[in-house]
Amino acid sequence: MTGTTLDDYTDRYARRVRGMTASEIRALFSVASRPEVVSLAGGAPYIAALPLDAVGEMLGQLAAEHGTTTLQYGIGQGLPELRERICEVMALSGIDASCGASPEDVVVTVGGQQALDLVARLFLDPGDVVLAEGPTYVGALGVFQSAQAQVVHVPMDDEGLIPEALEAAVADCARAGRRVKFLYTIPTYQNPAGVTLSEERRERVLDICEQAGLLVVEDDPYGQLGFESEAPRPLRARRRDGVFYLSTFSKTFAPGLRVGWILAPHAVRDKLVIASEAQILCPSGYAQAAVSTYLGTMPWREQLKVYREVYRERRDAMLTALADLMPAGTTWTRPAGGLFVWATLPEGLDSKAMMPRAIAARVAYVPGTGFYADGSGSNHMRLNFSFPAPERIREGVRRLAGVMDQDIAMRRVFGQVSQPGRRGQAGADAPGPDLA
Amino acid sequence: MTGTTLDDYTDRYARRVRGMTASEIRALFSVASRPEVVSLAGGAPYIAALPLDAVGEMLGQLAAEHGTTTLQYGIGQGLPELRERICEVMALSGIDASCGASPEDVVVTVGGQQALDLVARLFLDPGDVVLAEGPTYVGALGVFQSAQAQVVHVPMDDEGLIPEALEAAVADCARAGRRVKFLYTIPTYQNPAGVTLSEERRERVLDICEQAGLLVVEDDPYGQLGFESEAPRPLRARRRDGVFYLSTFSKTFAPGLRVGWILAPHAVRDKLVIASEAQILCPSGYAQAAVSTYLGTMPWREQLKVYREVYRERRDAMLTALADLMPAGTTWTRPAGGLFVWATLPEGLDSKAMMPRAIAARVAYVPGTGFYADGSGSNHMRLNFSFPAPERIREGVRRLAGVMDQDIAMRRVFGQVSQPGRRGQAGADAPGPDLA
Repeated sequence: MTGTTLDDYTDRYARRVRGMTASEIRALFSVASRPEVVSLAGGAPYIAALPLDAVGEMLGQLAAEHGTTTLQYGIGQGLPELRERICEVMALSGIDASCGASPEDVVVTVGGQQALDLVARLFLDPGDVVLAEGPTYVGALGVFQSAQAQVVHVPMDDEGLIPEALEAAVADCARAGRRVKFLYTIPTYQNPAGVTLSEERRERVLDICEQAGLLVVEDDPYGQLGFESEAPRPLRARRRDGVFYLSTFSKTFAPGLRVGWILAPHAVRDKLVIASEAQILCPSGYAQAAVSTYLGTMPWREQLKVYREVYRERRDAMLTALADLMPAGTTWTRPAGGLFVWATLPEGLDSKAMMPRAIAARVAYVPGTGFYADGSGSNHMRLNFSFPAPERIREGVRRLAGVMDQDIAMRRVFGQVSQPGRRGQAGADAPGPDLA
Repeated sequence: MTGTTLDDYTDRYARRVRGMTASEIRALFSVASRPEVVSLAGGAPYIAALPLDAVGEMLGQLAAEHGTTTLQYGIGQGLPELRERICEVMALSGIDASCGASPEDVVVTVGGQQALDLVARLFLDPGDVVLAEGPTYVGALGVFQSAQAQVVHVPMDDEGLIPEALEAAVADCARAGRRVKFLYTIPTYQNPAGVTLSEERRERVLDICEQAGLLVVEDDPYGQLGFESEAPRPLRARRRDGVFYLSTFSKTFAPGLRVGWILAPHAVRDKLVIASEAQILCPSGYAQAAVSTYLGTMPWREQLKVYREVYRERRDAMLTALADLMPAGTTWTRPAGGLFVWATLPEGLDSKAMMPRAIAARVAYVPGTGFYADGSGSNHMRLNFSFPAPERIREGVRRLAGVMDQDIAMRRVFGQVSQPGRRGQAGADAPGPDLA
């Protein structure tokens, strides 16, 4: 097969993949990882807060003393002892035996991403609708698009998803004859918006979905990273059936191990396992043993407190810097947990168009457009506070405010914002067009 | 949503998943893992041959000294240093820069399974045909079925895939108006057949696919586990375009880390990365660092020799035991590498029906039916020699021969084989119906 023929073959046959936004974000992260850039773009936990010597010792022993099992093949559903530990972790949030949570119904996955992909693979057919918060997790948009499903966004306010808007979306889809398969929601410390679905709305959202015959896919990577009062109990703690609960150890332990899970309704547990086996055969036995041993022998509850303290301090640094430095007309959410603040720009500013100027000013963020299936959101940006140190956060916000002030001034003078840098120029002062 | 409604929802919406064979094999492995059973059923490497203390020390250091990077998120394509090491590994087999192999075109995956799934996800639409050896890897059948593709098997002989049969299959599909997307092949030390595609047939197979405009998906997990002369060069070493080369560290290092890869034609590399990001976000940075450090600092070429020596001794033990003990009319392949022997039973014996009696006699294998999409293959079985020690292999073959002798005697007396044990009986003497 010649190169040309392969191109033809690819053009003819290769499935369309969500390209634009994902590759933009990759390019963004690549630029943002330069040391001179303050990156508020990532979503990385602050791994340096872990007791790395002790973790290293534990990991070494797992191979030296138990390598013949930990380094061997495992079973598709995941290690029984890890699934028991996962139930202990979920019980902290109120998902326990009283609401039917059992290690039998836990499926271990390659991070939260595979959990999402498995649910999508099991249920989504081309043309199906998924309801999701607007904005929502960019990786979920990738999964739904890969499944050729359509995302209908439901707006949020400071109390999270708006029940009336959810009802309206359900009704609109019904009227239009569109088949809605499930609601995908991150109810607690949402990514990217940083808001939390309030106690009373949780029941209403569940009722609406129940009445509409919709499954709920509850994604909860951040629920145990609250800074203030306890978070409202997860949706799964309130309903035994109809809710898939997805979570991960990426934010509470370490993303590099890629261990997440689904607590599935019993009726579909086996189907998820078989789908996962077709995808990856089995999750890493070594990574599973690492998480299981971490939870079984190390002070993980104390470590959660450490993460919460670190992130609270950084969130405070960000909120203070935003209040001190942002131009008038900018607003932002005040997250009670998690990793992100969602900012809304003064009228007329465009976070995506502004990105090259921000990088030139050595600060990075994710433009709001990444979090909407329809490319809207250009007057928003996501700001991460979990990874950079407090003084770097303030410096990043200072640089960002400077870029915004300039844009505002330019708008006043010219009525629109000019694009500095010419296509093809390279270097930190004029990043390539892939970020524009 | 009530339980009944969820069942309804699942019945209505959940995608059909390859259930029967996969769950049978799971049940089989569960029984086969009892210590009193000699399992010739698995496909596990002999991890105890690794220098586990040294591996443990290396893994511990990776977390203790480099945890802030190894335990953090990584990039979807995989670590650049690992992709360079992978090119060194492939160069051993003749896939090197001279045929266009480059770290740029390597995509790191969660074992060989995800590599297969990504290729399927990118190219297969429901109803498409995949050509594959008959028999072939059971996990590949799961992937293709999950993609709602049809597998058309192409027969093999002792020199592997029969080119004339491949031509005939291509022509048959063309005549029937069926769209064939690619040939999936394990040319070297095939799973489950243990045969190797001969030197001259490699060129013919490539020519046939080239003329038919078919991609080749070359799965090569075992190519470096040869016991005798060098294996013929991989297909990818002979063609720069049109061949996806898939492999894994599961057999040459450790399956518990779940690290495999695709060397992709450049034109589709990005699409594979984006598809993988939608599935798993990124492969485990820690596992990748482990493999990369193993390849960079430990004597992995020597370790390959150790594995080869161990497996050659075990293959010899199996071939000798088969020659000494198997009833007349039984035939088997003589693999020059890899992990498996493929046995053909005397006429009238059924390896699937015999399974409960084998388990009762404390020996396990995989019935041939697992390796055909159409459920044929009942007069075959796959026998693994990589994991059990030589004396266990001989004991397993002795037990298996005893069961076969009994079946043959019963057939002589009654004309058919009766099924011992009644449905519902439990225990090692009468295993449950899930294995029948």
